[in-house]
Amino acid sequence: MAKPQGLVSLLTDYGLQDPYVGMMKGALLSVNPAARIVDITHDIPPQDVREGGRILGAARVYFPPGTVFVAVVDPGVGTDRALVAVEADGQFFLAPDNGLLSFLKGSTRRIIRITQSEYFRFPVWATFHGRDILAPVAGHLTRGVDLGRFGPRVESLTLLQRSLPRWTDERLEGEVVSIDRFGNLLTNIPFTLLPTTSGVRIAVGRKTLRKVSRTYADAPKGDLLALVGSTGFLEIAVNQGSASKSARIQKGDRVLVTPTRR
Amino acid sequence: MAKPQGLVSLLTDYGLQDPYVGMMKGALLSVNPAARIVDITHDIPPQDVREGGRILGAARVYFPPGTVFVAVVDPGVGTDRALVAVEADGQFFLAPDNGLLSFLKGSTRRIIRITQSEYFRFPVWATFHGRDILAPVAGHLTRGVDLGRFGPRVESLTLLQRSLPRWTDERLEGEVVSIDRFGNLLTNIPFTLLPTTSGVRIAVGRKTLRKVSRTYADAPKGDLLALVGSTGFLEIAVNQGSASKSARIQKGDRVLVTPTRR
Amino acid sequence: MAKPQGLVSLLTDYGLQDPYVGMMKGALLSVNPAARIVDITHDIPPQDVREGGRILGAARVYFPPGTVFVAVVDPGVGTDRALVAVEADGQFFLAPDNGLLSFLKGSTRRIIRITQSEYFRFPVWATFHGRDILAPVAGHLTRGVDLGRFGPRVESLTLLQRSLPRWTDERLEGEVVSIDRFGNLLTNIPFTLLPTTSGVRIAVGRKTLRKVSRTYADAPKGDLLALVGSTGFLEIAVNQGSASKSARIQKGDRVLVTPTRR
Repeated sequence: MAKPQGLVSLLTDYGLQDPYVGMMKGALLSVNPAARIVDITHDIPPQDVREGGRILGAARVYFPPGTVFVAVVDPGVGTDRALVAVEADGQFFLAPDNGLLSFLKGSTRRIIRITQSEYFRFPVWATFHGRDILAPVAGHLTRGVDLGRFGPRVESLTLLQRSLPRWTDERLEGEVVSIDRFGNLLTNIPFTLLPTTSGVRIAVGRKTLRKVSRTYADAPKGDLLALVGSTGFLEIAVNQGSASKSARIQKGDRVLVTPTRR
Repeated sequence: MAKPQGLVSLLTDYGLQDPYVGMMKGALLSVNPAARIVDITHDIPPQDVREGGRILGAARVYFPPGTVFVAVVDPGVGTDRALVAVEADGQFFLAPDNGLLSFLKGSTRRIIRITQSEYFRFPVWATFHGRDILAPVAGHLTRGVDLGRFGPRVESLTLLQRSLPRWTDERLEGEVVSIDRFGNLLTNIPFTLLPTTSGVRIAVGRKTLRKVSRTYADAPKGDLLALVGSTGFLEIAVNQGSASKSARIQKGDRVLVTPTRR
Repeated sequence: MAKPQGLVSLLTDYGLQDPYVGMMKGALLSVNPAARIVDITHDIPPQDVREGGRILGAARVYFPPGTVFVAVVDPGVGTDRALVAVEADGQFFLAPDNGLLSFLKGSTRRIIRITQSEYFRFPVWATFHGRDILAPVAGHLTRGVDLGRFGPRVESLTLLQRSLPRWTDERLEGEVVSIDRFGNLLTNIPFTLLPTTSGVRIAVGRKTLRKVSRTYADAPKGDLLALVGSTGFLEIAVNQGSASKSARIQKGDRVLVTPTRR
């Protein structure tokens, strides 16, 4: 059975201009001064549970067994939404049960509803469970307290429905699910669904692309191209530029992939 | 007597686009490679000593005893303003003596003016005491050098006057002191001064609120509400939205609280 | 001979809104869970190799011997540009060989082209060598694998030409190479080339300055001044304000220094 190591990885929508992240780190270190904290990001768009889950789900597979993730994107803080502690694939996750952990679907080993207040920090503020509940629980977990001590087992997590691409009229219809810092358009079309790398037509906005490139530099500087991004999904990019700006595409816009050869 | 542990927590207005934070971390680790560095934030608005103090004062109470805080918001760098090393509440603070540590008023145990140049990095640049004085001093402090070795004791810290709410005509007049990442309006009215949670009228801008809620989700999505924020002060928020945008309120705007029942 | 310690310092243009930095940290910690990660910055402007090198070159001299730097600003990712592992001045650098390490000119002890795929993470994605090659190699390096094991020695690094100031008509002509968070204008004129601190006329945009000050506070609040910045270059600043805004100067603009006294 995997055991929590001292490594705690944080993902929140708190931003860094306010004292919230500092408070949370302090609350964690007050319980376990030896914890090693690694920030994933605190810049998830405010209250965007879906985007928080996308980032965490993509990043967490690269972390070692025993990592404890504390993830907080929590518009329902203080309501009766549960807080959960989850063991999955040898890693540990502390988060509100609001769909943020949907990426764990099918791989959870134990799901615990966090209820045992002897592991909380007092007073518990209704507006900041990240600091007053999740951070100290992470401290106890990395000091060796078993997950089962934090509360009763529950059967399942709240899951958000994922937007999946679908086949219609012999073409695959997906969408732009995120735009990254470079202006790359990330789609929900996994590379495993792409027909071949060359016999393909990809339509996005008013642009059409005729192949899937291997690297950003495969197109001339400033030109649009399609490639398989580093998370394994079809991505539209501009070599040394921003696809988002040059193709005027937004999150949610449609991407159509048509195989042209069999 | 509290002793510095290896934990050093940083707060500056240096931002992250420039080499300043990296230089400071390097200078610290060059003196004590075993120091564990935890960032609070480097995004304090440039030269905003008051806001830097507000963030640090709010966050530091959550950190364990022995933490060494290095705080730099220092418009007077290189002038004759002092640099100080302070022990308070079992924690340690290295900062310019320009009001940034005002939150320590009444709780300091020792205040040292940092003068002993054998603990500095050479050459000392007049424009970067954070890197050349405070960071190496933090390295020595976490390696066991006593605070008293860094210079002579002084009696008191420079203090900034806090903006306090006041009673006029049977109502409490406060102000918006900060707007956080979520657009929440943080006031200077501590929850201990609020009359009751329901018999109250709260006026901010053109809006009036009639109760103090417990959580953000107590109002319908998009509606304005008042609640006690996680630092213990009255806060005006919008459920899953930005109070700052929807009520068009700015930092410094007045907030009036009138008890309506005794 | 210097040995890598457990300290790994990161600089990238990945930003923090995407999962890239988290993935990279995870990939590193998966190889060496004991590595201590210190972020320099992830906010290098996208694909700005020159600026990335400037920041890293300025910051790295403050880090202790044995530090392993992983630097990724890599518009040519996946092409035949090399990845290199360099030992210089007792420190170690992992980066694409695209000029990012130009600041090491003349101080390299060993330059290795990274080719030995047994140290990579699989599968290696053509779009993310930072995660799949450099991060795991940093993990192995800090676990004691010798630099020479990662591939064959090569003779030299790709170098970017630096913009240097030059003497024309008895005046020194330089340029603004960067504008920092505070709006300070950083020039390429090293303080060693400045004639004296007072017998000088400095022209930038439509403004003329007649001395080199010691600190930002040497001018009245809001006034423009010249001083030697903390990296050793002539800098134009405004006391508690932004020189960039008040003098309407941009990156690349000319700065003229004329000695007025001998």
